[in-house]
Amino acid sequence: MTIRVAICAPSASFPRELVAPVMAVAGRFPGIELIFHDQCFAEAGHFAGTDEQRLHALLDCANDPGIDAVWFARGGYGSNRICEAAMQFLSKEADRKAFLGSSDGGYLLGSLYKAGIGMPVHAPMPLDVKRDRGEEAIARVLGWLSGEDAAIEPSMLEPGFDKDPTVAFNLTTLAMLAGTPLMPDLSDHVVMVEEVSEHLYAVDRLFFHLMQVIAPMCITGLRLGNVSDVPENDRPFGTDALGIARDWCARSTIPFLGRAQIGHDHANRVVPFGRRRRFDER
Amino acid sequence: MTIRVAICAPSASFPRELVAPVMAVAGRFPGIELIFHDQCFAEAGHFAGTDEQRLHALLDCANDPGIDAVWFARGGYGSNRICEAAMQFLSKEADRKAFLGSSDGGYLLGSLYKAGIGMPVHAPMPLDVKRDRGEEAIARVLGWLSGEDAAIEPSMLEPGFDKDPTVAFNLTTLAMLAGTPLMPDLSDHVVMVEEVSEHLYAVDRLFFHLMQVIAPMCITGLRLGNVSDVPENDRPFGTDALGIARDWCARSTIPFLGRAQIGHDHANRVVPFGRRRRFDER
Repeated sequence: MTIRVAICAPSASFPRELVAPVMAVAGRFPGIELIFHDQCFAEAGHFAGTDEQRLHALLDCANDPGIDAVWFARGGYGSNRICEAAMQFLSKEADRKAFLGSSDGGYLLGSLYKAGIGMPVHAPMPLDVKRDRGEEAIARVLGWLSGEDAAIEPSMLEPGFDKDPTVAFNLTTLAMLAGTPLMPDLSDHVVMVEEVSEHLYAVDRLFFHLMQVIAPMCITGLRLGNVSDVPENDRPFGTDALGIARDWCARSTIPFLGRAQIGHDHANRVVPFGRRRRFDER
Repeated sequence: MTIRVAICAPSASFPRELVAPVMAVAGRFPGIELIFHDQCFAEAGHFAGTDEQRLHALLDCANDPGIDAVWFARGGYGSNRICEAAMQFLSKEADRKAFLGSSDGGYLLGSLYKAGIGMPVHAPMPLDVKRDRGEEAIARVLGWLSGEDAAIEPSMLEPGFDKDPTVAFNLTTLAMLAGTPLMPDLSDHVVMVEEVSEHLYAVDRLFFHLMQVIAPMCITGLRLGNVSDVPENDRPFGTDALGIARDWCARSTIPFLGRAQIGHDHANRVVPFGRRRRFDER
């Protein structure tokens, strides 16, 4: 049975010239069919079409009984604007699907997890094909969807991934969800966060906000992914991202569990939310 | 009776060479004595001293019975790290004081307002003296403290300022408070927000987060201050800050009440939190 994966763009639009390199990687996975929704290429200011266009495309994919998984084409800001409406209009067809993405896509993953709909999965996205070694990121997702034993092994998932329920997020994305009605309950979860292109003072500020919200939830612990492309500030912050994460965990009496291989790079791992690990458990 | 104003730096440190220009403006207000706490000039990485140093300096000023007002020297990130402890250790002496600041100082203003301690006042800060026409910003604060009639007139306060209880914040600061235990209840308040040096997509994201938290509070309405120094993005956002504020108000059924003259500029107005308007009402 072919696994049919629909790709839509709830945030920013996908460059048409990157379809071919993604399809080339998919060619190595004969059990998978990728379908790019036309909305991926729409443009409306910052976004891949208006809120309505992005919402309808997401619903087209998620409510289609012939589709097994919905893959967010890329991040870039905007999926938060359609989360609330999407949760209202997703049908029961959405419930048997995996939803894959990361970065800005985390707004939808978190909202789906809160609503108990489908299987949210932190994963590389089609746009990652343009990175150095980007094909590896694409192949990691397709291998996981294919149920290939090697892809389900810990080496393909997040290393150190264990039996605890887990979530993985971009730090800004999770901080913007934290305190809102879209925020899932993360009690007893391992929480992984990564960040890109933020000053260290902003990382510290995001942890301040996030910790105020998740410390009362009694999470199992925090793991820090890559914090990359940190801009230079006019003065050194005084510690690095690891120091900031450890500091806020200590202040908030949250166990710091070490690093996680998630981030804005080719090595970004597949992290299914919750306790399920395999696509066929969805 | 001389009004004694203690200046401390809960965020970043104050350049020593700017003391003289601030004191020069203060020379025009014989009823006011400014006292710079030594901690203003401390440095520890990004901050004006360690968390402990900044906390102790704030408590020195706020708990001193000989001081009438506490003025935050500048923003620059960091006051959030000492809010929780400060609220625990402020004595009843703090209650008869005004606390003045803006930008990052909003974490303390919001926390004080939540705790019902003293009179939090959104106002220009000593560092503003270095701006073009910065002396006007300093003089506006000292005029308000002096109770000069001209300074209490609407022309010196926020124009259009009326009888509704009001708060004024930097947007990032309020968004980072929103959803945390430090966030004050803003029911029936006019909420003013301003921003500086943020991309429009980040402004949109901050409004998304803030509105999710304050819409259920039934605020009276939102007013938009200056949104200045917006960096260029790789693509146009599609609307401006005013359009973003209007859009989120409409989506959240919050009345949009127009512009407000607050911001990171010399014209930044004095906005006492709540219903009180004059320093002698504290």
